[in-house]
Amino acid sequence: MAKKKTTTAKTARMAKLNARDKKTLNSLVGMADDVERFASRGRAPHIEIPSRSLSNVKYNKSRKIIEMGSSKNKRELFNLSQARTYMQTLLVGSGCKQLIEQGKTTSIRGLYYLLKHTIEGTREETFVDQGDCDPVIEDVEVALNALREELHVYASNRGAMVGNIVVNDNGDEIDCSRMGSGGYAIPSIVEEEVMQFVSCKADFVLHVEKDTVWRRFNEDKFWQTHNCILTHGNGQPPRGVRRLLNRLNNELNLPVLCLLDNDPWGYYIYSVIKQGSINLAYESKRMAIPGARFIGLRSIDYERCDLNPSVTIKLTDNDIKRANQIANYPWFEPKKRWQKEIKKLLSNGFKLEVEALISKDISYVTEEYVPARLADQDFLD
Amino acid sequence: MAKKKTTTAKTARMAKLNARDKKTLNSLVGMADDVERFASRGRAPHIEIPSRSLSNVKYNKSRKIIEMGSSKNKRELFNLSQARTYMQTLLVGSGCKQLIEQGKTTSIRGLYYLLKHTIEGTREETFVDQGDCDPVIEDVEVALNALREELHVYASNRGAMVGNIVVNDNGDEIDCSRMGSGGYAIPSIVEEEVMQFVSCKADFVLHVEKDTVWRRFNEDKFWQTHNCILTHGNGQPPRGVRRLLNRLNNELNLPVLCLLDNDPWGYYIYSVIKQGSINLAYESKRMAIPGARFIGLRSIDYERCDLNPSVTIKLTDNDIKRANQIANYPWFEPKKRWQKEIKKLLSNGFKLEVEALISKDISYVTEEYVPARLADQDFLD
Repeated sequence: MAKKKTTTAKTARMAKLNARDKKTLNSLVGMADDVERFASRGRAPHIEIPSRSLSNVKYNKSRKIIEMGSSKNKRELFNLSQARTYMQTLLVGSGCKQLIEQGKTTSIRGLYYLLKHTIEGTREETFVDQGDCDPVIEDVEVALNALREELHVYASNRGAMVGNIVVNDNGDEIDCSRMGSGGYAIPSIVEEEVMQFVSCKADFVLHVEKDTVWRRFNEDKFWQTHNCILTHGNGQPPRGVRRLLNRLNNELNLPVLCLLDNDPWGYYIYSVIKQGSINLAYESKRMAIPGARFIGLRSIDYERCDLNPSVTIKLTDNDIKRANQIANYPWFEPKKRWQKEIKKLLSNGFKLEVEALISKDISYVTEEYVPARLADQDFLD
Repeated sequence: MAKKKTTTAKTARMAKLNARDKKTLNSLVGMADDVERFASRGRAPHIEIPSRSLSNVKYNKSRKIIEMGSSKNKRELFNLSQARTYMQTLLVGSGCKQLIEQGKTTSIRGLYYLLKHTIEGTREETFVDQGDCDPVIEDVEVALNALREELHVYASNRGAMVGNIVVNDNGDEIDCSRMGSGGYAIPSIVEEEVMQFVSCKADFVLHVEKDTVWRRFNEDKFWQTHNCILTHGNGQPPRGVRRLLNRLNNELNLPVLCLLDNDPWGYYIYSVIKQGSINLAYESKRMAIPGARFIGLRSIDYERCDLNPSVTIKLTDNDIKRANQIANYPWFEPKKRWQKEIKKLLSNGFKLEVEALISKDISYVTEEYVPARLADQDFLD
């Protein structure tokens, strides 16, 4: 009887959930059911978590994304070195279940506070600090094959969008061609259930690294004259921005062009947008954009754009180290044009920020540089 | 003849400028005219810059803002130790003049690149690095009594807004009650010439410290149920957010309530919003909001909200030092309730983040904490 009642209450609660929430909730309940099944059969409860170590990350040459391999780690309750993480994993699972059932979202900081408490009758805390909780959140993501956002946990908002697209964000229709100078702040959760593309006239997406560069393009109404969508991610784009770019590319077939600094950090940002990152390899499927293209800056731009020597910035030892590492990434390694690009950076001995083009003219980047690359279809892939 | 022609061309260019731009441009030209006047009379050219040292910053008790005193520094061309900064100051002035005349804006990074070059016939660079340029920008601001934004130089965009207000941003009407989960990204330049308040039904502004807290309030539609405007500044609010809060308070008479962490950093953010900052004292007039109120978190909240000990964070030595410094600020010093607040923080020995309230319930902050403070009108001033 009691069991039936619970089930009914559960069904009633779940009725409000969307399809994706139901799917995630089922995975979470499945994880707990597995544990219960083991216990009721008198076997030691455990959870299996796909390994997130570097050795379990591979570059899939045909799909052109970074993927996780199949190796898994067992996490057992009756194992002194694993009991704590075992408990934390189930705790995070139960916290996410609560969030989904309540139809609420929170930050990783919020989830940490939601779950942090002193275990009754002991002085032991569930989590010592945020750093104790974050890897467990990633564990649950990868174990359930669910994006963090599907677990109702979000990263901080960074990045903005303007251009010829109308989106519906939680019931509000947002015309990104009428967003003034500030633009639409790209939220962390941009899954189809909360954000739909209403209409889109744009031909492509221009993604720039920094908000300061983005402002130049917005102020010059570049997206009007070139019929595009303009995004930035304030440096390394956060998950919401990457996921949105992925959806614009996949669902609306918009090419994604990346305007980044001519330095190892710019190369790396491009690499993450295109192939996914090593740390978050389990998310590549829905984050990576193998067709993304690099519009610049390029190492040849110092000569090509006839820049003043004073705008160059000397490469640091770390820059040189990073550039060599990136050149050896398996996805850059076979590409002659990228090898040439990186080699030229090293022989230049300096890097160039996109803002350096301002020394030519305040609007050189919007009126000369990008239009010339677009006209010549001159990109690195 | 030649002179007349120049004047005509100048008038034609200036015709497109708005009233504020014209005023700023006149100040810039005035600065150059002064220099020319000295030179043509055979006297050594110099510029006078109000001193930005701590000794020239005072708390104005009647206006309740931090203000600059009247002491000035002379910067002379024919003075070996000043010639370089003299040249840089005029260079920044001429760069800002160019921006205003072109009707364009840029970041401090952009201005740096715009002005950076190797001086002809020498190996001397106009600016060595960004740190060489930034104080000079502040000098020009303070010398002309113009906000950085009026010089067409902006800080980075941070912060967002939702709520019952419609603004016009550069010709686009933005209804902040229909901005989805992302909100309207508050731009750096929010002066009247580019942003007008179209209509506002809200009764007050709730400004929260972090975007993660802001999301909780937005998700719970707090601004609908409490008819307010909801802003955040991603920590210490950037200039655009402070200026917008100031305008909402001054022009629309909206009270500004601040929800910040219970730690010295939270106190400091409140202090800057309310009285202005020591570094940017020359901007207090248009940035500070003497009527801003502190809604929490308070040091009494650990008991008042019956929080779990595990959510407390031990004060560091630096926290203790900062708390004592802040207690001695001349604007906090005479306030008994603030002295009690800070004393209690120190005797607690721990700080509390707003997110700590999540340990009570995910929406405790929006459904219990803030509504209770609003009902009791229980704020610190």
